Amino acid sequence: MKKGHKSDDLVVGLDVPAHVGMHLDDVMTPALIIDLDAFEHNIETLRKQVVDANVRLRAHSKTHKSVDIARYQIDHGGACGICCQKLSEAEVMVAGGIDDVMISNQLTDPVKIERLAKLAQRARLLICVDDSDNIRDLSKAATRHGASIECLVEIDCGARRCGVAPGQAAVALAQQIAVSDGLQFAGLQAYQGNAQHIRDYAAREQAIATAILHTGETVDALATVGLHCDIIAGAGTGSYHFEAASNLYNELQCGSYIFMDADYQRVLDQSGKPVSEFQNSLFIWTGIMSKARPDMAICDAGLKVLSVDSGLPRVFARDDVEYVNCSDEHGNIADPHNQLQLNHKIRLVPGHCDPTCNLHDWYVGIRDDRVECLWPVSARGKAF
Amino acid sequence: MKKGHKSDDLVVGLDVPAHVGMHLDDVMTPALIIDLDAFEHNIETLRKQVVDANVRLRAHSKTHKSVDIARYQIDHGGACGICCQKLSEAEVMVAGGIDDVMISNQLTDPVKIERLAKLAQRARLLICVDDSDNIRDLSKAATRHGASIECLVEIDCGARRCGVAPGQAAVALAQQIAVSDGLQFAGLQAYQGNAQHIRDYAAREQAIATAILHTGETVDALATVGLHCDIIAGAGTGSYHFEAASNLYNELQCGSYIFMDADYQRVLDQSGKPVSEFQNSLFIWTGIMSKARPDMAICDAGLKVLSVDSGLPRVFARDDVEYVNCSDEHGNIADPHNQLQLNHKIRLVPGHCDPTCNLHDWYVGIRDDRVECLWPVSARGKAF
Repeated sequence: MKKGHKSDDLVVGLDVPAHVGMHLDDVMTPALIIDLDAFEHNIETLRKQVVDANVRLRAHSKTHKSVDIARYQIDHGGACGICCQKLSEAEVMVAGGIDDVMISNQLTDPVKIERLAKLAQRARLLICVDDSDNIRDLSKAATRHGASIECLVEIDCGARRCGVAPGQAAVALAQQIAVSDGLQFAGLQAYQGNAQHIRDYAAREQAIATAILHTGETVDALATVGLHCDIIAGAGTGSYHFEAASNLYNELQCGSYIFMDADYQRVLDQSGKPVSEFQNSLFIWTGIMSKARPDMAICDAGLKVLSVDSGLPRVFARDDVEYVNCSDEHGNIADPHNQLQLNHKIRLVPGHCDPTCNLHDWYVGIRDDRVECLWPVSARGKAF
Repeated sequence: MKKGHKSDDLVVGLDVPAHVGMHLDDVMTPALIIDLDAFEHNIETLRKQVVDANVRLRAHSKTHKSVDIARYQIDHGGACGICCQKLSEAEVMVAGGIDDVMISNQLTDPVKIERLAKLAQRARLLICVDDSDNIRDLSKAATRHGASIECLVEIDCGARRCGVAPGQAAVALAQQIAVSDGLQFAGLQAYQGNAQHIRDYAAREQAIATAILHTGETVDALATVGLHCDIIAGAGTGSYHFEAASNLYNELQCGSYIFMDADYQRVLDQSGKPVSEFQNSLFIWTGIMSKARPDMAICDAGLKVLSVDSGLPRVFARDDVEYVNCSDEHGNIADPHNQLQLNHKIRLVPGHCDPTCNLHDWYVGIRDDRVECLWPVSARGKAF
C-alpha cells in the first residue's frame, strides 16, 4: 500500500477519496480533482473583468453545488451573491451561510413554494417567474410566512426554454408582481442559454445582440409604466463579454468559468482560436485497471463519474492517448504507442462540468501535486 | 399545499421525495419511481426462465445499487447472489447483509486490493482478473488477511474492453491462480457487453454465438490442463436467452431486466418487434414548471436526474407529447396540442437505467398510485 494512505479510514459511508497532505498519486480513483492554481486564476480573471465593466457578478452555483466554492466566489471572486437553479440547492446554500441567493428558475409546485417562503425568512431570496398564477401563489406563501421574495420576470430572449415573450407579456407580469403582497419586482432574467456554446464568435455575438435588443425593449416598456429594473441579469461563461459590454445587463451569472470543460473549450474567440482566458481546473482523476492489449488501456472512469451529454472527456495535456469509448464504469483509452500501464493515473477533462460535478460527493483540491483541501459537493443530487 | 404531504419533514440533509402512503400525485419532482407491479413481474419472468434453463442467476446490482433490491432478487427472484462492478459497491452490499458477491471487474489499485481482502473475510467474494501481476497482488493481500478470494479469468469474447484473449492466455492466468495462496480458480467471466444493445436479433445472436465459441474453446483448453470452471459467467438483459440456451454458460448476470429503459426497448425480437417480455418499471416522475408557450412544456427533469448517453427519455404511455431537448435542470417537451399545464406531473422512461439510478438517492415504490416503500440507492456514487 502506498505511503500516506490510511486505508482504515476508508470505510463505508465515509468514503473520502483523499486526505489533506496526501500526494496526488495516492488519491483514490476515480475522483474529481481541482487544480487550485488554475481555479484561483479563473476566479481572479473574471473578478477583474466585472470590476472593469462595472457590473455585478452573481456566480452560478449550479456548476459546483459547493458551499465552499460559493463562499470563495463571494469572499475572493467579486461575487455579490450566487444563483441556484433549484430550491433544494438554495436551501443547502442558505444553511451553509450564503445569504444572497437567486433561484434563476421557476418554482411552481405548491410544496416547493411553501419551502421557498420559509427560506426567504432567513436570507435574501430572488426568484424568476413567467406565469401569473405562479405570482399569485408566491404572494400568498410569502404573505403567510411574513417573508419578502424578490421576483424577476424571465423573458425568452432566444433560448426557447422558460420565460415569457419580451415586451408586453413581461410588463403585465411585472405589474402584477409590483402590486402583490410579499413580493418585490426586482428586474429581468434574460439568459440566452443556447448562445453559450455557439462555436463561431460572430454567430455567438449575433445571438446575444438579439437578446440585448429584446431585453432593452422590455426594459423600456417597463419604464413607460413606471417600473425600474434593479437587476437585468443573464450571461454565462460563453457569452459574458457581450452582456458585460452591453450597457444594459448589470448582473452576470457565469458558472463554468471556474472549471471549464472540453465543450466550452470548443468555443472560439474573435481570431478563430479556442477561448483561452480560463484554464482547465477540473479533472477526473482516473486509474488504468486493465491493459490486456498493448494499444488500448481501460480506465475506471465511465458514465457514472462523468457526463457525456456534450461529448467524451479529453485526456489532459496528452496527445499520445485518447479517450475513445465510455461505458457505465469504464473508459477505453486508445494507446497506440503502449504508453499507459496498469495503475497509471491520468487526468481527464470532462465534456461538461456541471452534470459531472453532480455525480460526485467530494472535490479534492490539489496544489503542487499535494492535496490541500477536501470540499463536499454540498448540494450533490439536490434536484427539487 | 396538497393533503398528506408533510413539508416540515423535508429538511436539508433528509430530503426524501415521498412518504409511505402518500398519493403518487404528491411525490416531489423530480424523483425516481418504481412501478412495483411491473418490477415484480420482471423479476418473476426471469426467475422462471433461469429455473427452466437450469442456470444460475447472479443479478447485477450495478443497475440499481440498492441493498433492498439485491435482497429482493435473492429472496424472491431466484438469484444465487449478486454482481457488483466496484469494490465500494461490494462493501455497501456486504454491509447490508448480502453474503455472496462477485465483482465482475478488475481491481488493481493496491489500496482497493487491501480493502477487497478485508471484505473477503466477511462474505464470499469473487473477482475477475486479466493480469498476472494483479493475481500476485491479490494473492499477497488475501494471504496477509487470511482471506480466500475466488478468481475468474476474464476473457475478451468480442466486447474489446477488459479481458485477455480466449485460449492460452486465459489458461496461463488460471494456472497461476490455481497455485496462488489465498486464491481459488472459480471459472471464466465471458460477458459480451457490446452485444446487449445490438438491435437486430440475428446479428445479436451471431455476436453471442462467437462469444460462446471462444468461451467453449477456452473451457476445453482449461480442461486439458486439469482446470474445471465452476462458473462460466456472462450475459445481460439483451442477450441472456442465447447464453442460457448455450449448454455452456451456467451463471447469468442480467441487471437491467428489473427496470428496462428506452434503449433496451429498441432491441428487437425474432419477429422484428421490440422485446416485450420485461415491462417498464422505472420512471422519472417530473413536473411541468414553465408553460409560457402553448406548444412547449418545460419539465424539471434534465441532465442531473437522467442520463442521455443512450438517447433522450421517452414520455411514458403518451404519443401526444415528446421530450425533445434536455439541459442541465430542464426538459423541453413538445406539446403540439397544448395538453400539459403547469404542475402537471408525468412519467419519463429514462434512456439508460444504470447511470440514471446513480443520480438519485431514493427509489419511490408505487402500487395503485400510492407510495408503498422508499428504498435508498445504497451505493449511489460509489465509484472506487
